[in-house]
Amino acid sequence: MGSVPDFVVDIASTRPGTPGGGFMRRFWMAVHRSEDLAPGHAKPIRILGEDYTLYRGESGRAQVFDYRCPHRGAQLHLGWVEGDAIRCLYHGWKFDCSGQCVEQPAEDVGFARKVKARSWPTREHMGLVFAYFGEGEPPPWPPYPEPPQAGLIHCWNVETVPCNWLQCYENTADEVHVAFVHRPGGSHARLSADLPVITAEETDWGMLRYGTRKDGQVRHTLHYMPNVTRVIVPPLAGFDGVGGWQEIYFNFTPIDDASHLWLITSHVKITGAEAERFLAKKQEFLAKVKAAPKVMDLVHEVWAGRRRLIDIEHPELAMVQDIAVQAGQGVLADRTSERLGRSDAGIILWRKILAREMQALAEGRPAKPWRTPPADVLPVIGV
Amino acid sequence: MGSVPDFVVDIASTRPGTPGGGFMRRFWMAVHRSEDLAPGHAKPIRILGEDYTLYRGESGRAQVFDYRCPHRGAQLHLGWVEGDAIRCLYHGWKFDCSGQCVEQPAEDVGFARKVKARSWPTREHMGLVFAYFGEGEPPPWPPYPEPPQAGLIHCWNVETVPCNWLQCYENTADEVHVAFVHRPGGSHARLSADLPVITAEETDWGMLRYGTRKDGQVRHTLHYMPNVTRVIVPPLAGFDGVGGWQEIYFNFTPIDDASHLWLITSHVKITGAEAERFLAKKQEFLAKVKAAPKVMDLVHEVWAGRRRLIDIEHPELAMVQDIAVQAGQGVLADRTSERLGRSDAGIILWRKILAREMQALAEGRPAKPWRTPPADVLPVIGV
Amino acid sequence: MGSVPDFVVDIASTRPGTPGGGFMRRFWMAVHRSEDLAPGHAKPIRILGEDYTLYRGESGRAQVFDYRCPHRGAQLHLGWVEGDAIRCLYHGWKFDCSGQCVEQPAEDVGFARKVKARSWPTREHMGLVFAYFGEGEPPPWPPYPEPPQAGLIHCWNVETVPCNWLQCYENTADEVHVAFVHRPGGSHARLSADLPVITAEETDWGMLRYGTRKDGQVRHTLHYMPNVTRVIVPPLAGFDGVGGWQEIYFNFTPIDDASHLWLITSHVKITGAEAERFLAKKQEFLAKVKAAPKVMDLVHEVWAGRRRLIDIEHPELAMVQDIAVQAGQGVLADRTSERLGRSDAGIILWRKILAREMQALAEGRPAKPWRTPPADVLPVIGV
Repeated sequence: MGSVPDFVVDIASTRPGTPGGGFMRRFWMAVHRSEDLAPGHAKPIRILGEDYTLYRGESGRAQVFDYRCPHRGAQLHLGWVEGDAIRCLYHGWKFDCSGQCVEQPAEDVGFARKVKARSWPTREHMGLVFAYFGEGEPPPWPPYPEPPQAGLIHCWNVETVPCNWLQCYENTADEVHVAFVHRPGGSHARLSADLPVITAEETDWGMLRYGTRKDGQVRHTLHYMPNVTRVIVPPLAGFDGVGGWQEIYFNFTPIDDASHLWLITSHVKITGAEAERFLAKKQEFLAKVKAAPKVMDLVHEVWAGRRRLIDIEHPELAMVQDIAVQAGQGVLADRTSERLGRSDAGIILWRKILAREMQALAEGRPAKPWRTPPADVLPVIGV
Repeated sequence: MGSVPDFVVDIASTRPGTPGGGFMRRFWMAVHRSEDLAPGHAKPIRILGEDYTLYRGESGRAQVFDYRCPHRGAQLHLGWVEGDAIRCLYHGWKFDCSGQCVEQPAEDVGFARKVKARSWPTREHMGLVFAYFGEGEPPPWPPYPEPPQAGLIHCWNVETVPCNWLQCYENTADEVHVAFVHRPGGSHARLSADLPVITAEETDWGMLRYGTRKDGQVRHTLHYMPNVTRVIVPPLAGFDGVGGWQEIYFNFTPIDDASHLWLITSHVKITGAEAERFLAKKQEFLAKVKAAPKVMDLVHEVWAGRRRLIDIEHPELAMVQDIAVQAGQGVLADRTSERLGRSDAGIILWRKILAREMQALAEGRPAKPWRTPPADVLPVIGV
Repeated sequence: MGSVPDFVVDIASTRPGTPGGGFMRRFWMAVHRSEDLAPGHAKPIRILGEDYTLYRGESGRAQVFDYRCPHRGAQLHLGWVEGDAIRCLYHGWKFDCSGQCVEQPAEDVGFARKVKARSWPTREHMGLVFAYFGEGEPPPWPPYPEPPQAGLIHCWNVETVPCNWLQCYENTADEVHVAFVHRPGGSHARLSADLPVITAEETDWGMLRYGTRKDGQVRHTLHYMPNVTRVIVPPLAGFDGVGGWQEIYFNFTPIDDASHLWLITSHVKITGAEAERFLAKKQEFLAKVKAAPKVMDLVHEVWAGRRRLIDIEHPELAMVQDIAVQAGQGVLADRTSERLGRSDAGIILWRKILAREMQALAEGRPAKPWRTPPADVLPVIGV
C-alpha cells in the first residue's frame, strides 16, 4: 500500500507560529484534571508551547492566566489567591480574574488601571479543566457530549508523556496494536483473538472509525477533532469485572512539541452500590499504583535495554507498554520513512484531514467549520 | 511611570567578549569563601563564563590559575599542591604560582622554561577569596572597607543560584519586595509595617539608595560597583536576638550568564562572650540547615507547582523565597516587557549606570574612574 | 619539541559523514561483551553515532539490526526474538536475521516481501561481539590474533566513558602517564621506578611502540588499527599475584563523538587449578566492585572539586584515575593548544597516521591497505 500522505505542512508541531499551533488554538483544550486543583491554589502549566498560570479561586472558579506578572516577570503561581483574584508574591500587585490590575501597594494611585494581564476563557467538563487559547469567541460549550446513560464519570491520574502528542493520538486510531503491544494479557486480551480490518470516514465533527472482525462484528470508535478519542474498552484488569465495559475519552493535550498530557476520563455505566464497589476497587488500584515503580522509570529502563518490556509486571502495565512504544518512536517521530499498510487506514485518513486543514489555515483559506460532536453518535463495541 | 531605560547594550551578560564581560573584569571579583579552601587543596571554579583552578598553597596562599595544563589539557585541580606550586597529575609537570613551568619529569631539560601557564592576582578580604581577571594592574586593595566597629566578621554558606547575577543584584536595590516575598514572617518582619519610598543617587563609588518610611525614618543602603550591596538587616530568625542588627555584604559573582555565586559576609557588632554565644547559635543554625531539605530542591518543587511557596518552612526560608522569585524570573530575565514603577527607582538608576558604562567601554570611550568606597559612608537603618 | 601535527582533518569525530566516520567503518568494531547478551534478548546499542538493535537469537547467534521497524518506527529491541528472527512489538511484523520481512499479521499477503530491514555482519571473538558497518565485504576475520599461549581469556565489565574515544586511545600510547596518574600505588607501581623514553614506528597493521628504560629494558606495545591496543601489564592489585603478568587488549569503540565504550579483554597465561584460583579472585574482586561507589559517580565528585582524586580508594581505582584525567580533558579535547614533548612520540605518530589516512579518504585517494595483525608480533615487557 503506497498511499503515504504527502505532508505539505508539519502536522505534529503546535507551538505558536506553526500551522498546527493555529489549528489547535481553534478548539477548547483540556489542561488539567479538576480534582488536582484545590481552591486557593495556583500552578504553572505549559500548553501548546506556552506557559500559563492556572489557579482556582476561593469561589471554586478555575482561571488560566498569564504566567508572569507584567511588573517584573515574577511567576504568578508563587503568589496568593485572594477570592477569585491573584496577587503577585514579588510586590503585591493584585489582578482580578479578567486580568485587570486592581492593586499596587507601593505605587502611585492610577498606575494600576493602566496595567492588564491576560486571562483565557476557562471552564470545566467531565472532570477536566478546559481553556480556549484562540482569537475571538471560543467554540460552543461543552466541546463534546456526555454519555447518555447514567453512570459514574471519573478521571484517571494524568500522565506526562515525553513525546509529541500526535504519536499517541494516532495510536488510538490503530486498533491492531492492541493484539501485540498488550499481548501478554491485561485488559485488552479478549479483543486480540482476531485482528480487525480497519476502515474510517470523515464526519462533520471528526472521524468515525470501524474495526471489522472475522465474525462480522464492527467496533465503532469516535475521533473528535482535534485531539479527543472516545472508545469502548473492556473491564479493567484487577477490577474483577466490576464496572463492566466502559467508555473512555482520551484527551492528548500538547505541553510543547516534545511532550503532552494524557488525560483519561472514564464513564462507567453503573450507579448506587455498584458504583461504590467500583470506587472501592479504584482506591485499591490507586494504592497499588502508588506503591509500584513510576511508569516513566520503567519506560526508561526498557529504552536503555536494562529490562525487557515483556518481562515487566505493573498495575499500569498497559500504560508502560503504550508509552514505551509510542514515545519510543522518538520525541517527534519521523513520518517520512514509514511503510504504511491497510491496517493504518485510520491514521492515514486522520493525517490527511489534519494536513488539509492546517494547509488551508497556512494559506489563509477558510478551514472546515467543525461541529460539536452530536450526543447520539456513540462508540460501540460490536454491531 | 514610563521611564524604562533603553538598553543599548546587554547589561546582564558577563562572559568574555560582551560589554558586561569587559566591565566586570575591571574589578576584584569574590570567587570563594576562604574557609572552604584548605591548604594543599585545589578546586575548579567557573567565573564570568571561564574555568579556572583555585588552590591554596601549603603556606596558606590562595591562587587562581589556568584550568588546564598547557601540555595536554588535563584539569590542574586533579593534581598535587606542592608548597605554593601545583603539579599536574597527568605527567607531573610542575608550575610555580606565577605560572612558570619548573619541572617536566619526562622531557628534555630546557623545555620547561619555554612553558608558562597563566595565574591571576589573588587576595583575601573579610572571609572571601578575590581575584582580578582584567588587563593590567588590579584596582586598589581592598575592594571595599571593613566596618569601623569591632565585631565578628563571618561568611554564610555559599549558594549557587541558577540565574543571571543581575536579577539577584537588582533585588537588593528593591526594598519593597521584603514586605511581600518575606511576608509570612522571618527576619524582615519588623520592616514590613509600612512600605518605603525608594530614591537613589549615583556616587563616585556606586549608588546610595534611600528607603523613606512614613515616620520619616530613612534607611541608607550602599551599592558598591559593580556587584556588592552593603545593608543593615534585623536580627536573624531563630537567633533569639543574639547578635542584634548587623551589616551584610552581598557579593553576586557570575559563574556564567546563567548562574552565579551568592556570597554573604556578615558583620555582627559584638565581641567576647556575646560573640561566643552568637557563634554557638550559628552552629545550631547550621546543624538545622544540614538536616533540612536543600534550598534548591524546595525551589524546584515550588517551580513545578508541587508545593506552594507560602506553605514552606525551612531554616533558610528567606533564601528559598528569594531564589524562587528571582531565579523564577527566568535564567536570564526579559527586561524588555516590564512595567516599572516609582518603587523601582533603585533598579532603574543602577541599570542606567551599567548601561552607560558598558556602552562607553563598547565604544572605546573612557569609563568612569570608580573610586574604592570610603570607610566613612555607612549603611544605616534609620536617620 | 615543536612537532605538533597540522590537523588538516578532524581525526576525533566518527559520526556518519565525517572522515573519521568513513575510516572507522572500514574495520570490525567491538560493540558488546558477549556474556552480557543472553539468547532471546534484544538491546539498543549506539555505535559511531548511529543507533542499532543488537540481539542474540535462540540458536546463540548475535545480530546487529536496524534500530527501528520500517513500518512505523517502533524500537525493535522492545519486541520478541523468535528463533534467530525478531518480531516488532507494535504490529507483529517479523524479520529474519538477513533483514527480510517475513510476516505482517494485519496486512495483505505480498506486502511483506517488499519490506526489508538492514542487518550488519556480526561475529564474536575473544569474548566480544563485533560488527562491520562499512560498505562491501568486511575485512578478514578475526580482526586481531589470539595470544599463542594457552590460558584464560576473559573480559572485564564494560565501562561507558563520557568523552571522545581518541583521548582514551591516545592514553594507551602514553606510557609516562602511569607514573603520575597511578602514582599512589596500585597495579602499575613497579613500572614507575624510572620513566621510559618513548619511540614508535608505523607497521603494516598499525604502530609498534617502544618504552626504553634506563637499564636498557625495552617494552613493546602493539597498537592495532584503528582502535585496539595490546599491552602487557603487571599482576592486578588485590589478586595476590595470582595470574601474574598478563596481556590486555583494549578496544575503544565510539558510541558517538562524545562518549565511547571501553572494552577490556584479558589473557592470563594460566590453566587448570591456577586458572580456577584466578577466577575465584575475580569473583571476589567483582563483589567488591559491586559494593563500591560507581566509577562515574566518583569521577563527577572529583571533577566538581568535592573530593580530591588523590584521596580516593576504590577497587577500580586505576579506572577512576584514568577516566577522571582523560574525560577531564573535555568531551572532545582541544588538540590545537597543546605543548607536546618527546614523551608524546607515540601519540604524535598515531595522530599523523590517522590524519594521513582520513585525509586520503576525504580526498578520494586510496587509503593504506591495513593488514590483519600477525600472530607472531607480541607485546613484551622487557627485551
